[in-house]
Amino acid sequence: MSAPLRIGIAGLGTVGAGVLRILSTHPDLIAARSGRPIEVVAVSARDRAKDRGVPLDAYAWEDDPVALAKRPDLDVLVEVMGGHEGAPKDALEAAIATGKDVVTANKALLAHHGQALALEAEQSGRLIRFEAAVAGGIPVIKALTEGLAGNEMTRVMGVMNGTCNYILTRMEETGQGYNALFEECARLGYLEADPNLDVGGIDAAHKLSLLSSIAFGTQVDFDHVEIEGITAVTIEDVRRAGDMGYRIKLLGVAQMTGRGLEQRMQPCLVPATSALGQLQGGTNMVVLEGDAVGQIVLRGPGAGAGPTASAVLSDLVDIARGNRLPTFGQPASTLRQARPAKAAVPAPYYLRLHLLDKPGALAKVARVLGDAGISIDRMRQYGHEDATAPVLIVTHKTTRAALDEAMGGFEETGVMVDRPVAIRIEAV
Amino acid sequence: MSAPLRIGIAGLGTVGAGVLRILSTHPDLIAARSGRPIEVVAVSARDRAKDRGVPLDAYAWEDDPVALAKRPDLDVLVEVMGGHEGAPKDALEAAIATGKDVVTANKALLAHHGQALALEAEQSGRLIRFEAAVAGGIPVIKALTEGLAGNEMTRVMGVMNGTCNYILTRMEETGQGYNALFEECARLGYLEADPNLDVGGIDAAHKLSLLSSIAFGTQVDFDHVEIEGITAVTIEDVRRAGDMGYRIKLLGVAQMTGRGLEQRMQPCLVPATSALGQLQGGTNMVVLEGDAVGQIVLRGPGAGAGPTASAVLSDLVDIARGNRLPTFGQPASTLRQARPAKAAVPAPYYLRLHLLDKPGALAKVARVLGDAGISIDRMRQYGHEDATAPVLIVTHKTTRAALDEAMGGFEETGVMVDRPVAIRIEAV
Repeated sequence: MSAPLRIGIAGLGTVGAGVLRILSTHPDLIAARSGRPIEVVAVSARDRAKDRGVPLDAYAWEDDPVALAKRPDLDVLVEVMGGHEGAPKDALEAAIATGKDVVTANKALLAHHGQALALEAEQSGRLIRFEAAVAGGIPVIKALTEGLAGNEMTRVMGVMNGTCNYILTRMEETGQGYNALFEECARLGYLEADPNLDVGGIDAAHKLSLLSSIAFGTQVDFDHVEIEGITAVTIEDVRRAGDMGYRIKLLGVAQMTGRGLEQRMQPCLVPATSALGQLQGGTNMVVLEGDAVGQIVLRGPGAGAGPTASAVLSDLVDIARGNRLPTFGQPASTLRQARPAKAAVPAPYYLRLHLLDKPGALAKVARVLGDAGISIDRMRQYGHEDATAPVLIVTHKTTRAALDEAMGGFEETGVMVDRPVAIRIEAV
Repeated sequence: MSAPLRIGIAGLGTVGAGVLRILSTHPDLIAARSGRPIEVVAVSARDRAKDRGVPLDAYAWEDDPVALAKRPDLDVLVEVMGGHEGAPKDALEAAIATGKDVVTANKALLAHHGQALALEAEQSGRLIRFEAAVAGGIPVIKALTEGLAGNEMTRVMGVMNGTCNYILTRMEETGQGYNALFEECARLGYLEADPNLDVGGIDAAHKLSLLSSIAFGTQVDFDHVEIEGITAVTIEDVRRAGDMGYRIKLLGVAQMTGRGLEQRMQPCLVPATSALGQLQGGTNMVVLEGDAVGQIVLRGPGAGAGPTASAVLSDLVDIARGNRLPTFGQPASTLRQARPAKAAVPAPYYLRLHLLDKPGALAKVARVLGDAGISIDRMRQYGHEDATAPVLIVTHKTTRAALDEAMGGFEETGVMVDRPVAIRIEAV
């Protein structure tokens, strides 16, 4: 058996402690699979005294993650601090500069600086691996980069923020509105320090941008992910969508089109009976579509100590085994700059309109849609007690431009009680 | 860019032709991801003249797969002939003996000779990779061997024979019996040359035995997979199980228990609303459970040219990239011999009994169950027009020994119209 792989862990939160726990529980199993032991040499975190449920006595301590990264007695830096500027980035760069491979769970860092960091690593002959950065315990980076390497990928999709999916699931189950459930998440500790990372869709968009890069051979382009969080999703739409056979999910979709790369992270409707529609609570799901394989669906826990540490271990075992893979599946220097394409792929839409209850109102709505070239697949008008009539429409496939035209047209009809709602229906 | 990876393909059926198609459609994509081109040098099949929809002019031809395997101008043999004795085995061994890596889709060969072949490969410093052998396009071998390498696996499960799942799904949809649907599959060309490989559960059991080996670090032990096919599944049970909220699936389960390794491939009931229960038609699903990650579910096409070739390409790209992994995830010489444990894990059971419609019949049944220490979770008695009363029982968790005792006891009650049916309910 070869010499141990010597690692240092920067960050001893949930993930870091989870990694320590696996390595101390299963040293022999890991060594048998890796062909060599994986040995924690040193760790770094804010507070040494904090009780993390794992003993730290056996490891050297560094107060400064950059000092940890520079230690000459390490082969790999495991960066599980989080945050996309400052210490984590400095530590990662210091590790590469001093000849170490890096395993990170830091999607924000890679979404913002992935291309530059991958180039740095490449020029130094080092690796950056990040299985834990996307969809927790689901080995999706590996599936995409290696398992489907024979495919021209056509679309990648996913529900990749457990907190958002928890809120949307609970809205449906309990009939409570977004705000009440946001409070529940805050109480349960399900939210990032900046909750907008979760409910604003940013965390999930970080992840999507990383999957896009691998899938399409393009440089990470987080800035062109169109992002809409779940804060504007109403309980009425959750219920009405359900009536029409759909569920609302915060769904990320990346697709290479004739016009360029479309990346969206937004609330979408999916059929209630589909795998994505069935996804409950904090679980994640990623859908990978390639020209040879068709559709692969992966489901698993998107967060938590065990699942995320499992993903970190996957990268560590790979490195211990000598598997050396470019950060985004091919050399960073060969990744193309994506041409961003906004709203390139047509889709059907769900529309909810509150109309004044007077003769001709519906005809006006229908005329606006017709004028925009949008045809109606299904429509439902509800009984009502006040003077307004809620109308649900599922359109046939249409472009975003046509939809925007119709949304503008609705305003001019004079029969809208409040702003019409439009939610994309994604074919899954 | 490095020198091409030179491959020979033995077998030009669906899979072989699919591999040629991917390599000729996406040479640049594959080269970018592999770091080098993958080049087909020579091929071999039974009939050169047969139209496979892909031109063969560019490749050297060998009539004999063993001669192909021995060619000095190859780095890798792709064995996609099928069959577990004779030519495929000879070709694989010849390839290893002459210093080549092997990629195979041959589950039967590995189920029967995996340990010996893995040892041969190891002693020669060569690789055997077999992503395409299990669950078609789903990168499950990679997920298990690499993606979850940090986990002590607790259970692996799967629906891994599309033909069986197609038949069971169609039974439910159409109300037709097994025999009619078997004929339909024969007409559609869904069956192996020896259909018992499919409907007898053998093909799926081959696959399960390979997953077991990786999951538990044990030598492939196909001989101790308890196998029961779907030929005895009746339309009545499909319907009755549905009434109780279940679906019948040919489900493989491998589990390491205190008594040893339990491996079963048999019709099981799973909740109709579960991911496995929702699985329709020819699609495959594999569930991987580990101590750190919890549960990962993978779904995708289990057969067909594109998906299977996608899996072959995954192995080829890995080899081209220089990723060298032991056949079953750790050196074959370190794999333990599994202690086979039959019926080690208790489970609830679904029982269907046809009772003579006379006083005390049900009491006798209840007494048999009570005497065997089996308690009843739910029971349903149906109205009936003749003199027999169909009774459905869902038991609480019980051992197989207790179940067998009860099944014997039923016979002695004198109130059974025909043989009682018992089907395991798997917790999923």
